[in-house]
Amino acid sequence: MTRHNTIDASITPIGSLEVLSQVEVAKLKQAGENGLYELFRRCVLAILNTGSDSDNAKTILEAYPDFKIDIIQQDRGIRLNLFNAPADAFVDGEMITSTREMVFAALRDIVYAESERENFATELNSSSDITDYVFHFLRNAKMMYPGEAPRIVVCWGGHAIGKEEYKYTKNVGHELGIRGLDICTGCGPGAMKGPMKGATISHAKQRILNARYIGLTEPGIIAAEAPNPIVNELAILPDIEKRLEAFVRLGHGIIIFPGGAGTAEELLYLLGILLHPDNKDIPFPLVLTGPKSSEDYFKQLNDFIAKTLGYEAQQKYKIIVDDYAGAAREMTKGMMEVTEYRKKTNDAFHFNWRLTIDPIYQEPFDPTHENMAKLNLHKEAPIHELAANLRRAFSGIVTGNVKEQGLLAIEKYGPYEIHGDPDIMEPFDELLNSFVTQERMKLPGSKYIPCYRVIR
Amino acid sequence: MTRHNTIDASITPIGSLEVLSQVEVAKLKQAGENGLYELFRRCVLAILNTGSDSDNAKTILEAYPDFKIDIIQQDRGIRLNLFNAPADAFVDGEMITSTREMVFAALRDIVYAESERENFATELNSSSDITDYVFHFLRNAKMMYPGEAPRIVVCWGGHAIGKEEYKYTKNVGHELGIRGLDICTGCGPGAMKGPMKGATISHAKQRILNARYIGLTEPGIIAAEAPNPIVNELAILPDIEKRLEAFVRLGHGIIIFPGGAGTAEELLYLLGILLHPDNKDIPFPLVLTGPKSSEDYFKQLNDFIAKTLGYEAQQKYKIIVDDYAGAAREMTKGMMEVTEYRKKTNDAFHFNWRLTIDPIYQEPFDPTHENMAKLNLHKEAPIHELAANLRRAFSGIVTGNVKEQGLLAIEKYGPYEIHGDPDIMEPFDELLNSFVTQERMKLPGSKYIPCYRVIR
Amino acid sequence: MTRHNTIDASITPIGSLEVLSQVEVAKLKQAGENGLYELFRRCVLAILNTGSDSDNAKTILEAYPDFKIDIIQQDRGIRLNLFNAPADAFVDGEMITSTREMVFAALRDIVYAESERENFATELNSSSDITDYVFHFLRNAKMMYPGEAPRIVVCWGGHAIGKEEYKYTKNVGHELGIRGLDICTGCGPGAMKGPMKGATISHAKQRILNARYIGLTEPGIIAAEAPNPIVNELAILPDIEKRLEAFVRLGHGIIIFPGGAGTAEELLYLLGILLHPDNKDIPFPLVLTGPKSSEDYFKQLNDFIAKTLGYEAQQKYKIIVDDYAGAAREMTKGMMEVTEYRKKTNDAFHFNWRLTIDPIYQEPFDPTHENMAKLNLHKEAPIHELAANLRRAFSGIVTGNVKEQGLLAIEKYGPYEIHGDPDIMEPFDELLNSFVTQERMKLPGSKYIPCYRVIR
Amino acid sequence: MTRHNTIDASITPIGSLEVLSQVEVAKLKQAGENGLYELFRRCVLAILNTGSDSDNAKTILEAYPDFKIDIIQQDRGIRLNLFNAPADAFVDGEMITSTREMVFAALRDIVYAESERENFATELNSSSDITDYVFHFLRNAKMMYPGEAPRIVVCWGGHAIGKEEYKYTKNVGHELGIRGLDICTGCGPGAMKGPMKGATISHAKQRILNARYIGLTEPGIIAAEAPNPIVNELAILPDIEKRLEAFVRLGHGIIIFPGGAGTAEELLYLLGILLHPDNKDIPFPLVLTGPKSSEDYFKQLNDFIAKTLGYEAQQKYKIIVDDYAGAAREMTKGMMEVTEYRKKTNDAFHFNWRLTIDPIYQEPFDPTHENMAKLNLHKEAPIHELAANLRRAFSGIVTGNVKEQGLLAIEKYGPYEIHGDPDIMEPFDELLNSFVTQERMKLPGSKYIPCYRVIR
Repeated sequence: MTRHNTIDASITPIGSLEVLSQVEVAKLKQAGENGLYELFRRCVLAILNTGSDSDNAKTILEAYPDFKIDIIQQDRGIRLNLFNAPADAFVDGEMITSTREMVFAALRDIVYAESERENFATELNSSSDITDYVFHFLRNAKMMYPGEAPRIVVCWGGHAIGKEEYKYTKNVGHELGIRGLDICTGCGPGAMKGPMKGATISHAKQRILNARYIGLTEPGIIAAEAPNPIVNELAILPDIEKRLEAFVRLGHGIIIFPGGAGTAEELLYLLGILLHPDNKDIPFPLVLTGPKSSEDYFKQLNDFIAKTLGYEAQQKYKIIVDDYAGAAREMTKGMMEVTEYRKKTNDAFHFNWRLTIDPIYQEPFDPTHENMAKLNLHKEAPIHELAANLRRAFSGIVTGNVKEQGLLAIEKYGPYEIHGDPDIMEPFDELLNSFVTQERMKLPGSKYIPCYRVIR
Repeated sequence: MTRHNTIDASITPIGSLEVLSQVEVAKLKQAGENGLYELFRRCVLAILNTGSDSDNAKTILEAYPDFKIDIIQQDRGIRLNLFNAPADAFVDGEMITSTREMVFAALRDIVYAESERENFATELNSSSDITDYVFHFLRNAKMMYPGEAPRIVVCWGGHAIGKEEYKYTKNVGHELGIRGLDICTGCGPGAMKGPMKGATISHAKQRILNARYIGLTEPGIIAAEAPNPIVNELAILPDIEKRLEAFVRLGHGIIIFPGGAGTAEELLYLLGILLHPDNKDIPFPLVLTGPKSSEDYFKQLNDFIAKTLGYEAQQKYKIIVDDYAGAAREMTKGMMEVTEYRKKTNDAFHFNWRLTIDPIYQEPFDPTHENMAKLNLHKEAPIHELAANLRRAFSGIVTGNVKEQGLLAIEKYGPYEIHGDPDIMEPFDELLNSFVTQERMKLPGSKYIPCYRVIR
Repeated sequence: MTRHNTIDASITPIGSLEVLSQVEVAKLKQAGENGLYELFRRCVLAILNTGSDSDNAKTILEAYPDFKIDIIQQDRGIRLNLFNAPADAFVDGEMITSTREMVFAALRDIVYAESERENFATELNSSSDITDYVFHFLRNAKMMYPGEAPRIVVCWGGHAIGKEEYKYTKNVGHELGIRGLDICTGCGPGAMKGPMKGATISHAKQRILNARYIGLTEPGIIAAEAPNPIVNELAILPDIEKRLEAFVRLGHGIIIFPGGAGTAEELLYLLGILLHPDNKDIPFPLVLTGPKSSEDYFKQLNDFIAKTLGYEAQQKYKIIVDDYAGAAREMTKGMMEVTEYRKKTNDAFHFNWRLTIDPIYQEPFDPTHENMAKLNLHKEAPIHELAANLRRAFSGIVTGNVKEQGLLAIEKYGPYEIHGDPDIMEPFDELLNSFVTQERMKLPGSKYIPCYRVIR
Repeated sequence: MTRHNTIDASITPIGSLEVLSQVEVAKLKQAGENGLYELFRRCVLAILNTGSDSDNAKTILEAYPDFKIDIIQQDRGIRLNLFNAPADAFVDGEMITSTREMVFAALRDIVYAESERENFATELNSSSDITDYVFHFLRNAKMMYPGEAPRIVVCWGGHAIGKEEYKYTKNVGHELGIRGLDICTGCGPGAMKGPMKGATISHAKQRILNARYIGLTEPGIIAAEAPNPIVNELAILPDIEKRLEAFVRLGHGIIIFPGGAGTAEELLYLLGILLHPDNKDIPFPLVLTGPKSSEDYFKQLNDFIAKTLGYEAQQKYKIIVDDYAGAAREMTKGMMEVTEYRKKTNDAFHFNWRLTIDPIYQEPFDPTHENMAKLNLHKEAPIHELAANLRRAFSGIVTGNVKEQGLLAIEKYGPYEIHGDPDIMEPFDELLNSFVTQERMKLPGSKYIPCYRVIR
């Protein structure tokens, strides 16, 4: 089957867009046809490409230049007519159910973000405003089931991991699923797909019919990391920071698999939050795990944390190497503590209201050369601020490595300069070098030219 | 069991209020404690009085002067603490499930109406704005199930009917239920309760587990006509006109039992809409039915329609006397036509978008003496306008008969003067006289002093 | 609608007869057409007469002399063609779902009884054989749900009670249902129908969708006491003794409403079992209840028990007059004790295996003049044997009063002679006289001529 | 994790053994402890070994010499205490749900077979008796859902196929599942497991929650081909012939993947039945499919059929190479024809009653040297008899290759002699030789010494 087979189709909604008022349909149509059309088209194309193995958003988008969506208004509601859509999303002419659900989830989220953008515009100033926004967003996506005991495990890790690591993520997913836990990832291939596949099989073994495979993504990443069709709940948050907050408020525990700068960014984001003094009593299971071959990787990461954030930060996670069942067991134990705690504090199971997230973790960080150079990587800073700045540094490197805006800026101004204490900068440099050596900065095969310079 | 046993209780939500953000809970608490508290308290008290036989709102409200609600904010969501609540709503200290659902439905609707009042404030100008409002309101109350075949029968009629008529409404409900049809009424006793009770039994016989017993009410009437606990979907629309529109857009057919001025108002409302030229091809089954003893009543009503709106209006309904199975069969036949039509025109099953409702049926009518005197009851008017004005005349009489504002106005200024063509006024007067004679204007036992004067 | 409207129809199974082998269908057809045809026809006719108010089996059977069933064998399974069936069982030509279920339940039970008759023939000697038979019978009827907490309340009482008593049974049913309890009766009108109707309404109020309305009957009584269509689980046990055992093994508690000799028989059956030494620690809630007007009735019954079975027997039940909520509360309390006990003793919730039933309560009693005269009504007998013989005496009187075989024997040989201790016979005579006076022996209106003579 | 970790556990039933009478429990206990204990133990051990990759029954059984089951009788029902059970069947000490279901399915089937053995003993003479037996067996296993549209695809093929072929079976399963079809196999690894795994993923994609993964096995094979834990309906038929009949009566279509002598036996069994004159109009989709590398295999098989059974037999199947989606599409098309046909002929969806199976396909064939030598492989025989005898020849070779009794007989008497027409024997010999060359007769690695001699 070649990549470029296409098909025309006409689909009607499943889920929350089934009951729309005529005004809403008109708005959808208008929004979808004007300002938001490109965004919607791009998301839908990513979703329809779901089986594809490419991680290059540009390639995917260019592969279907004629793909087109018409939004049709009917008395009964809305209908989408698709032209030149990727044929793989269809079986004998009919769209796969999960794909159809996700197409309308995309429409739902884009329209919600747009309508809330107007409503909330002037209001998203405070930390609790942003948290409320995330809550409403997820509720609108029907992702909260009150009363359901905590069992959502977020899985983070590289999208371009090797075969052995991929297999390991499947095994962890299998072990999580067989213990009745659900999976939430950022969509895409690699460490985001493996756990879902593994859990699908073990949920079947345990006869669990209502298992959740949650995908949280954002418009900037969805094309490169398309949701796999096992995902049965998809939300497209409007930006990275809100997506990260959705992970930690919706999830009850987090597993981190090996990855590159992006995964380091996620780890620092989470450690930064957990190190906030207000959060110190809140149980939040965090397991770093991978196959035997990833042992050095985790040692290095652990060293880096020790040298930068210190002993206290190391207490927030547990590294488990080459023991997928052990990792899942640890997570199960953590879930029980979370459940206990939420009951005791009368907190909701479906949203982690108690977690304090400092505004520096909520505000978008724009990795310009200037902003990168201004980062304050000094040991005197409060630990959760240092973590925040380290996260930003990694975030900038991700941008410089793969995002269009970053690549252009590097081309123009040369590598980012990142300043800081030698005590911080040395381990920082080492860690990045090891990522380079292990080919985690770039897909295997291409030579990596660093987009940063560490100034000690 | 006396009426005045009370109980204290603490309840948490079922349904759509289970997942609230902290801001929302805070708003609910604030709204419920300040501006909307009295309204909420009044609605809850009506709901808790659900078993009571009184139709006197004042009596009920006065019977529980100490009844009080505290709205409590928790991390997990909202909680209501009730003090001195009517004991009949509880079984061994626990609130009946349906009652608990309805209490939170009331909160949901009051808060929705309030928040939309702000949003829509400037927008409810056009007819389609109002229709959209009604749609959103019902959707927020989760009353629309896309794809479900038409089967909602609205039952209108007097709340204070005699035993024989009540039994007949039960029989009709039984026959509707045994044919798989659902019941929607305006809540309250009499013709609104009978059909639900009958249908509950026959739905059980047909093993129908998802039967719907829909109650549509409004804050001004709920205290006098409390929802009976069979109601499993309750919406409290903000005013009479929106409630009437909800009936005709949500329902697929309507049955009218004997009643007084209020029932005449409803009949004229519906005829007025159905007589609109744009609606002439839209099937809308309308059956007037009652026991043998109500034959004269229907004859008179039919005569009145003939003399005022004429032959065409008579074609919009069918009178079936003393044949409850026949009435249900007629309705079943009508449902099939509605289904056919909606399919053919690709219209939604869950909301009657196609029906044109003239603004004169949507704008609130304020029955002051001046407005009553200005009513244009002349034959030259287009027929659906004449119907609108006749409806307003009956609406005013209802107000003058039983509503507080009306009683006070009559006391002060004397009876309303209603002007018009002798051709209209004569049958109008006759019909009203017959209502008086048949004791349909007031609960049996009290002498009726007319609140109107017909000027020919 | 007259009684004699008839209809022809063709129906296919719902439930356990949906999947039959060809041999089974052939056997069903053969059995249904030959030996068991009359029995089957009679049961089906009773079921189809479900709405009827007559309690005269003969009348019903004679009203439809042309009613006929053809059993049709298809590759897909079985089909019944009905000719000249009572029209009331149909709605617009289609049989009411519950009725259809019951028709096939009748077929299922008749065939099961027949096939087991052969298998078990030589084996039904011991008490535990009979208990096993009852268990298998009920399991074949799919009446046991393992793990469901005890909540089946058996309601006994007269089928021909007055309006006030009937309303009271409805109220008790309502109160049981609103507390989440299920209803099991012997089918038929009066005290067997009222509780189900009441509970249907209150189950709706509590949003209980899986409520059970169990009917246990036997071929000899079904025609006179047809199952009402609320019954959603019907079993036709092969004889009275097995039906009584099914009541006490399947039910978790029993309520007795006022009745005549039959009700007295049931009370003595149950007391006899509960007085068995092996059962003394087994909780079995038993409540006698009725409206104010039935107070004397219960006083007399209580007196009779005191004078015959004594103080100990009185401790087995509680009389609650004019307090339907209190009766239901008592039953709820009893259910909790039953649940506790079953858990503690690791006994099944779905079948009361622990209850010892003496063979004298399991063996059929044939009330010939000789057997009646031989009854041993002496105080020296062990108390549970005296109860057994008193039960037989009442059973004989029921036969002499209403069953064909009994009426003929009385005509031929004169009244039964019942011998015994004056200490027993005097209260026995008094009680029977009071039944006569209260017109509980015969439907009101006819003069009762005793079929017995008490010899002190 | 080593193979020999063991665990002790205590389990209670799920499914049809939840409600047992005391006599039944006693019988189960007795049967399980005496005559049937070894059989039961062996089946349970196979089920608990479910994750294992070995296909050597002896190895598995010898690996857990201390494995022991105690059957415990309780008032509430039955309980199994397991000692030294394979640890892999448990997660954190609790048995995987599907495994628990299968353990009790084994108990259910063994006891059913035993009890029916007594009942049916003298009756299993005729073809329709055996068919009825199979029907009752499957119904007792609750495998028939009346009214469900045909969608069970039986997958046959080798259990020891190569990686490429295995992957292909997964792909076919995925394509079947994404078209809403269910999978039925003979349990075990290879071609029996692949389709289920593939379908599990695609059923998840299509949001199909009630998918069926049916395993049909028999006591002689279960230890070597243990059911994988995806199987959610397991039946252990008493012998090979009944198992084969279960496949063709329960399944609606069959896919055959590459395999050895066993797979050839299955193909001939099915062709033999389909060639029966009575079956010529019954649609029965049959697809032979495999990856590109298996093309020669299918060519050879096709040639063999051409030369032995001829052109007509070739019309019964369709070979599709290297196109898993095409194979699934062909099956979907076939399902529609089956559905059409069953509707037209009023035949059940859940059991293929219409299919005539000649007694020579139902009677067990005992492959002694004498019986093998007597096989009638001549062209003059009616074609469906020739097929039957060819099937027997292959069946004997399977026995001679791998079954204990066969190996011993070959050792003692030398290879089987198989006589026949040169026209038959030549292609027969060629096909077997190619199986040898392709290493399909024995697990790769070991040298194959033929157990047969072809006499032309």
